[in-house]
Amino acid sequence: MNQEAMALLEEKKFPQLCRILKEMNPADLAALFAEFPEEYLPIIYRILPKELAAETFVCMDADLQEVLITAFSDKELREVLDEMYMDDTVDVIEEMPSNVVARILKNSNPADRRTINELLKYPSDSAGSIMTTEYVYLKKDMTVRDAFARIRKIGPDKETIYTCYVTDASRKLVGVVTVKDLLLAEQESVINDIMETNVIYVSTLEDKETAARLFDKYDLLAVPVVDQEQRLVGIITVDDAMDVLREENTEDILKMSAVTPTDDTYLKTSVFKHAKNRIVWLLILMVSATITGAIITKYEAAFTSIPLLIAFLPMLMDTGGNSGSQSSTTIIRGLALEEIKPRDFFRVLFKEVSVALMVGAVLAIVNTARVLITYPHDPIKYQLALVTGMALMCAVLIAKTLGCCLPMLAQKLKIDPALMAAPLMTTIVDAGTVLVYFSIATAVMHLTL
Amino acid sequence: MNQEAMALLEEKKFPQLCRILKEMNPADLAALFAEFPEEYLPIIYRILPKELAAETFVCMDADLQEVLITAFSDKELREVLDEMYMDDTVDVIEEMPSNVVARILKNSNPADRRTINELLKYPSDSAGSIMTTEYVYLKKDMTVRDAFARIRKIGPDKETIYTCYVTDASRKLVGVVTVKDLLLAEQESVINDIMETNVIYVSTLEDKETAARLFDKYDLLAVPVVDQEQRLVGIITVDDAMDVLREENTEDILKMSAVTPTDDTYLKTSVFKHAKNRIVWLLILMVSATITGAIITKYEAAFTSIPLLIAFLPMLMDTGGNSGSQSSTTIIRGLALEEIKPRDFFRVLFKEVSVALMVGAVLAIVNTARVLITYPHDPIKYQLALVTGMALMCAVLIAKTLGCCLPMLAQKLKIDPALMAAPLMTTIVDAGTVLVYFSIATAVMHLTL
Repeated sequence: MNQEAMALLEEKKFPQLCRILKEMNPADLAALFAEFPEEYLPIIYRILPKELAAETFVCMDADLQEVLITAFSDKELREVLDEMYMDDTVDVIEEMPSNVVARILKNSNPADRRTINELLKYPSDSAGSIMTTEYVYLKKDMTVRDAFARIRKIGPDKETIYTCYVTDASRKLVGVVTVKDLLLAEQESVINDIMETNVIYVSTLEDKETAARLFDKYDLLAVPVVDQEQRLVGIITVDDAMDVLREENTEDILKMSAVTPTDDTYLKTSVFKHAKNRIVWLLILMVSATITGAIITKYEAAFTSIPLLIAFLPMLMDTGGNSGSQSSTTIIRGLALEEIKPRDFFRVLFKEVSVALMVGAVLAIVNTARVLITYPHDPIKYQLALVTGMALMCAVLIAKTLGCCLPMLAQKLKIDPALMAAPLMTTIVDAGTVLVYFSIATAVMHLTL
Repeated sequence: MNQEAMALLEEKKFPQLCRILKEMNPADLAALFAEFPEEYLPIIYRILPKELAAETFVCMDADLQEVLITAFSDKELREVLDEMYMDDTVDVIEEMPSNVVARILKNSNPADRRTINELLKYPSDSAGSIMTTEYVYLKKDMTVRDAFARIRKIGPDKETIYTCYVTDASRKLVGVVTVKDLLLAEQESVINDIMETNVIYVSTLEDKETAARLFDKYDLLAVPVVDQEQRLVGIITVDDAMDVLREENTEDILKMSAVTPTDDTYLKTSVFKHAKNRIVWLLILMVSATITGAIITKYEAAFTSIPLLIAFLPMLMDTGGNSGSQSSTTIIRGLALEEIKPRDFFRVLFKEVSVALMVGAVLAIVNTARVLITYPHDPIKYQLALVTGMALMCAVLIAKTLGCCLPMLAQKLKIDPALMAAPLMTTIVDAGTVLVYFSIATAVMHLTL
């Protein structure tokens, strides 16, 4: 399909091209546009039917949107803005340079401009920042017939019509009714009698991730957003909730690997930006790792007299680090999904310690076997197996204890638990493991420092 | 609310309890039920209104469901089954022991039993396994009025009515029409004229994650599922897609930390199961780490003559491991979201190598400063700074190259890229880093092996 479109474009067969394009989805069209040479963008865009054009515009990356807006006449810009929902307009504005923002605001009608300015004021991680103001509201004394008349009249401009909100005279949210309820009710029924009054809603300043998780928990298609006075000011739709969850998951995954998250996709991010997003944590962790180095230096006499001790360092440090990140990641994910709550701390700790003892014992046994097989003629093989086995047990125990305590402590201190994952665990657990290993070694093997 | 309910339960004030419970959401009720003593479950369940009871049942964990089913009479079981959607029934069956499954099948009507058996046959990661058979289908010669009559008649039992599917005489999918389209059309319009014929659909055997990602990409509320002959056999709704995405994200995160994923939540999983899910990878990685140990042993002469060399090992290994997992995690996430495609391999490799050179240079400079500050009077401080700086550059380069190549290679070989994350990276990069470090050290410092 894409190659066909490209060929038609090169031969400038616009009518045929239009026939193909207008059968496509906005999301696919936006992906196709990203592959066309930039100079053709405005031409192709103009051959699309207006509504499809606007929907495609919303799906595009910011850089393509900017190319188009720059090419638009004021009239064209107004047409696109008219077709767009408020939340999408705000998303576009947030990505544009100031001269483009000024043009967009100049070409919005005064009411829209006011709404846009209101929406831009919400903090970027708040429910307010992802809501739209285009929803259907009803009054509780309306009949089902009235409600349908209203939906038919104002529905075309609304982001969803399937969930309608019932407000009182002061715009306070009093109930919710779905189109399914309306369709299954009698035409003369009064909204007050069929609406659900126990409404799940969020406030404008609620964390957008918390708002998005509500969709998953309660299987909703839209969630109403109210201000401090309980007045309905907007709605969040399920598609925006999915975007938030995808972004938050990506952020968590990147943070857990010591990468500062960005909004852009991997390929869109410049090498310099990638480097910047990675260097900070690498520097912090590199400098912290020197503590482990310092501990090793303290035991110089021990390992110069028995150099074989050093050969076990990578195994001990890696096992400690891996055990720790297994626990921390599991706990961090559990906290994010609210499967683990702060009050579960002792249950979690007990579980992790039990798991550590079990896993540690198995590892120590396998390690003993390995030592005895690898060094069958070494006079200190039993001591070596004992020392490394005990160190393994301790490393796993330290790692798994910290692996559950650190993320839960972070949440208590309102630090993002995702920062307590593998890289930090490895660095901290390394130091502990090395210290314990050499302490045990010097004690068991009667080494002098 | 929960404490109030618990108090009323203890005082056996059932009418008051019922008044509170029936105002609650199914999801919240299910959470509340999990906190009640098990013996009260059937009693409280029975005071709920039937529809709410069934919806609550669907939200419960399998162990509570089993307690209830065991307490149910056949009549009660049939009532719950009647209220449940097919996909939910199948989900319940998959969690139950065989005697309970037999009772459920015995109490389903023959048509449902056939459907259940069909649905149970789909592989657990297929689109077929998460679809439901309760959808609204229309014929293309119906008018809008006919369509509404049909929706009103069969709608109450359907999981969604907002997207209706148009099929031909042989049940092949020919179009889709939304209730919004229907509401905004004239009553006498014919479905054929208003339906969208370019339908996004999946086949029953498609990967369920691929199906779920379609909702996010195209902002859909439901996706039709067709069999090999293009006949419509079911639909997937957005709430189920969100469940799949949440589970797949959790699985990816756990796999990336060398934990075998389970379906249960953290607290529901036994200590033994947790240990089992973690031990396999720990064993594999522990044994692999001995390779690094063997490499170190080879350079025994080098580090016994300059013991300070060992002090830099943790810093080098950690930095290598962290650099590698930064890259691998970023690439794995990009692949999962399809932001990175296999054909982008060389662009990705070029980016990672550039980032590695940039990051490696910064780290080497900071490291040089640290060495000169920490060992101001050591005669080999310049050599040490040079050796560790070069080793750092190489470690980062190796790590970031492997960090992009391994996940992309895994995808090519149809292995889950998520397995190529931090733990495996650390182990492989460790060996490379140690080898490079000692090679450079022996060359620069003219050490003999």
